[in-house]
Amino acid sequence: MPLPEKALIAQIRRTARSATRPHATSRKRTILTGVGDDCAVLRLPAAHDSLVTTDFSLEHIHFRRDWHPPESVGHRCLARGLSDIAAMGGKPLAIFLSLALPPDLRQSWVNRFIAGLRNLAEQHRASLAGGDTAESPGGILADIVVVGSVPKGKAVLRSGAKPGDRIYVSGELGGSAAAISLMRAHPNHKLHPQAYPRHFYPQPRLELGRFLREKKFVSSMIDTSDGLSTDLAHICEESGVGAEIDSTAIPRATIGNPGREVDLDLALHGGEDYELLFTAPEQKRIPSRIAGVRVTQIGKITRSGEVFLNNSQGKISRLHPLGWEHFRKVAR
Amino acid sequence: MPLPEKALIAQIRRTARSATRPHATSRKRTILTGVGDDCAVLRLPAAHDSLVTTDFSLEHIHFRRDWHPPESVGHRCLARGLSDIAAMGGKPLAIFLSLALPPDLRQSWVNRFIAGLRNLAEQHRASLAGGDTAESPGGILADIVVVGSVPKGKAVLRSGAKPGDRIYVSGELGGSAAAISLMRAHPNHKLHPQAYPRHFYPQPRLELGRFLREKKFVSSMIDTSDGLSTDLAHICEESGVGAEIDSTAIPRATIGNPGREVDLDLALHGGEDYELLFTAPEQKRIPSRIAGVRVTQIGKITRSGEVFLNNSQGKISRLHPLGWEHFRKVAR
Repeated sequence: MPLPEKALIAQIRRTARSATRPHATSRKRTILTGVGDDCAVLRLPAAHDSLVTTDFSLEHIHFRRDWHPPESVGHRCLARGLSDIAAMGGKPLAIFLSLALPPDLRQSWVNRFIAGLRNLAEQHRASLAGGDTAESPGGILADIVVVGSVPKGKAVLRSGAKPGDRIYVSGELGGSAAAISLMRAHPNHKLHPQAYPRHFYPQPRLELGRFLREKKFVSSMIDTSDGLSTDLAHICEESGVGAEIDSTAIPRATIGNPGREVDLDLALHGGEDYELLFTAPEQKRIPSRIAGVRVTQIGKITRSGEVFLNNSQGKISRLHPLGWEHFRKVAR
Repeated sequence: MPLPEKALIAQIRRTARSATRPHATSRKRTILTGVGDDCAVLRLPAAHDSLVTTDFSLEHIHFRRDWHPPESVGHRCLARGLSDIAAMGGKPLAIFLSLALPPDLRQSWVNRFIAGLRNLAEQHRASLAGGDTAESPGGILADIVVVGSVPKGKAVLRSGAKPGDRIYVSGELGGSAAAISLMRAHPNHKLHPQAYPRHFYPQPRLELGRFLREKKFVSSMIDTSDGLSTDLAHICEESGVGAEIDSTAIPRATIGNPGREVDLDLALHGGEDYELLFTAPEQKRIPSRIAGVRVTQIGKITRSGEVFLNNSQGKISRLHPLGWEHFRKVAR
């Protein structure tokens, strides 16, 4: 362990304290007791439901030290959790980080990891409230917990899609998986994180998620963490419906210079873009840009129970969920 | 992965559903949406603060597959979190399990692990509400999150001890570390888990913690997860006080047949007994048995800022916190 467990806790605690300070005047205190007791004590807002999500970020599975700068690992680790809160239309309040470190890890790696995580946390006014630390038996292991809130009974679920609803997606898809493909294909060529922000510094769509929930636009919502094909299948399964989407309508990310659109396969199955995929009744007028993010209609919900893709020649085929296994894994 | 991620989620989901059912009639629903959405949606009790704790259980660090049956790993994993809730005087409500499994792990291991965890959860009427699953880059990795509640402003902190307060501990200490010492000393001799329940199936002291909080007996409290010397140091540090304890007063666990008391060192530094260590003003009459658990006065809080141990000859020496590093680690 680069610092003994206690020193690391002390460091996270300082981070937690400094992260709490800026908001102390602007809103009621959520974290009554943070790092340094058996539990964190939270005072969650009245007349709200609580949201809880947990996400692993494991070295060799979710990131690689030779591919990802520590700031990116910290950012992506938290982005996963914040994006889950966004997909419920919620607001993040408190973050818990469980972090296991190999004994030979340099302290500078930990500092930069925490800086990346804290930077994103501050952008969304969420504070580090606790967690656990341990020595790792192998590789860097992080598990992030985000606690958020949403007005009572208003959480947007995956299960509300109805036949006839239109399907929308925010931003562009496939950009994150495209970066992984490039790193796999050229192991000795380091990508510039600034040139591939969708992979290294994805932005959870919290403002968009809250807007959609407040305006009562949406019938169901999920984030595109597993890839469009898999995440749409989740909505269909939970809602007991099917879907038809148009391949030409899918907004594909642009990478490189000169920019080119990523392959359709990456946009369909790539995942880890942390955009929002949602459905809305046909009569709702969904703006094409919300909170600075493009919103695109890509298809509609059907009764069928299956997901179909219309290609550019008007041919229809089954769209099978192929997410994580094929496109997202950094290892193997 | 013994089952694909989705199948494991489906299994945990069934567990979560069956675990929720028995309590559905006896109390208001806490978990509105569990496994199967981006976040769990919880309706926490009004006029209560929320408690959150996260704890790693990592193979080779916290347990060994050749030492611990899967049921014990699942039980101990959850016991760590429940014990943190007990130490705040709280009530557990919802459990989140992040579980990463090596690809070659047998499904029966997972089933037995879940059974051990579920069995303890049901005893304390807490339900599995979500989590994450992943392939592990090495070894079995679990992170448990427990969300609980306590009446507003009533959480028992580590920071409330005052000079003159008496120090108490529940149960007996050193039994868990004694089992580890035996397994280390005799690697080829398997211990019977039933003969060493303090190590393999520790009981979090939830009823005791709640009783002490409700009766307003305690000024500070912590669980003995890191060992008496370390946990008492935590209380002193957070409360800005010192302590004096008597070695002869420390209740030591009995192991083996014929039973013999564990060494003082194990009782002082052993940890993972998940008993409660607490302080109470001198004038409070603390029963010697609460909720079926023995409660022993072991010393008192002082102004000094340091922790001292009086031995049986009346000699006083500094008690340094030596917890985890020396006595609890299963590896190295």
